[in-house]
Amino acid sequence: MKLNKRGLLVVISGPSGVGKGTVRKALFELDGHDLTYSVSMTTRKPRKDEVDGKDYYFVTKKEFERRIKEGLFLEYAEFVGNYYGTPLDIVEDKLGEGLEVVLEVETAGALQVREKMKDAVLIFIVPPSKMALYERLISRGTETNYQVNKRISKADIEFKLAHKYDYIVVNDEVFNAADRINAIIRAEHAKTARSIHTYLDMLEGENGK
Amino acid sequence: MKLNKRGLLVVISGPSGVGKGTVRKALFELDGHDLTYSVSMTTRKPRKDEVDGKDYYFVTKKEFERRIKEGLFLEYAEFVGNYYGTPLDIVEDKLGEGLEVVLEVETAGALQVREKMKDAVLIFIVPPSKMALYERLISRGTETNYQVNKRISKADIEFKLAHKYDYIVVNDEVFNAADRINAIIRAEHAKTARSIHTYLDMLEGENGK
Repeated sequence: MKLNKRGLLVVISGPSGVGKGTVRKALFELDGHDLTYSVSMTTRKPRKDEVDGKDYYFVTKKEFERRIKEGLFLEYAEFVGNYYGTPLDIVEDKLGEGLEVVLEVETAGALQVREKMKDAVLIFIVPPSKMALYERLISRGTETNYQVNKRISKADIEFKLAHKYDYIVVNDEVFNAADRINAIIRAEHAKTARSIHTYLDMLEGENGK
Repeated sequence: MKLNKRGLLVVISGPSGVGKGTVRKALFELDGHDLTYSVSMTTRKPRKDEVDGKDYYFVTKKEFERRIKEGLFLEYAEFVGNYYGTPLDIVEDKLGEGLEVVLEVETAGALQVREKMKDAVLIFIVPPSKMALYERLISRGTETNYQVNKRISKADIEFKLAHKYDYIVVNDEVFNAADRINAIIRAEHAKTARSIHTYLDMLEGENGK
């Protein structure tokens, strides 16, 4: 029995190349949760087969910038000339329905979320060692030396952001990391700050009987 | 991989009659942890078959009171003329070895622990409803009406202490409650405050290489 009925906003982030996406996928494959994704909004043109409202919410640059001004994004970023962002109202609706919303974002996005939603659960995924991450970036083989070096420099800066997060989870083995995040979600629901209101209602409701 | 090497002090408490002992036993039966008990100290006489240092540490009243004065108890209480307490140094040793020490104590004891050890994990076990607890106390059938009423009055006061704890766990089904505590233990180890030092050592160690 879960006292807290509201869903959690779970932010999975970490240094570039740490394997956030793989951990997130493994998390969704675990049983016993009500996890959902948040669909992003973008100004990039839809690709063939992409469905508005499913893959992305496709909007104009003017519309996106209006939404930025009105504070309607949980986080957003510009990437090669296009905006990408997480609409705040849609996330709020899902949380209200009791679904856990999982966001996998870059460190800059995670820190924006912290500002907007104080009760979000921020998880920093780290490699078992710096070398493990460097090796991973190099062995991908899909990027030029220049690109790899740029990612390493980015990771080196991001390594130092751990203290901004609620939890640090080592991605030594993907299943272990996903399973630990699952434990974090279960534990967070039991936190007194999240569960005491329902608990007190329970006591009062019975007194009234 | 667990970044925090120190064990956790896990305090299981809750209103009288909620089933703390049953939950604690179920927790120890779960896999994948390094849980240990703490042996209490008492001034009561050893019963036949009781072993000093295993069942209890048996000491004189004078010795116990000297230890109280020196602040050597994590928590203690007097019960029908005898003292019972948890020796601080023994708990500290076990935590240092990386073992999780589980204490199952009355609410008064739990609040003493909070004062002495700020990083203890305090878990408040609650019944699914007040009536469920009352029925449980009445149906035991091992106590007089007077004793049952006294326990109900005690529980009614204790119900209101939930806000002093870190987590609230509903004992709707013993296995569920134990499993949630297990998740809390895993999550607590990943908390940034507990794991960042090892993480930073990891980064620095490699920089030095």
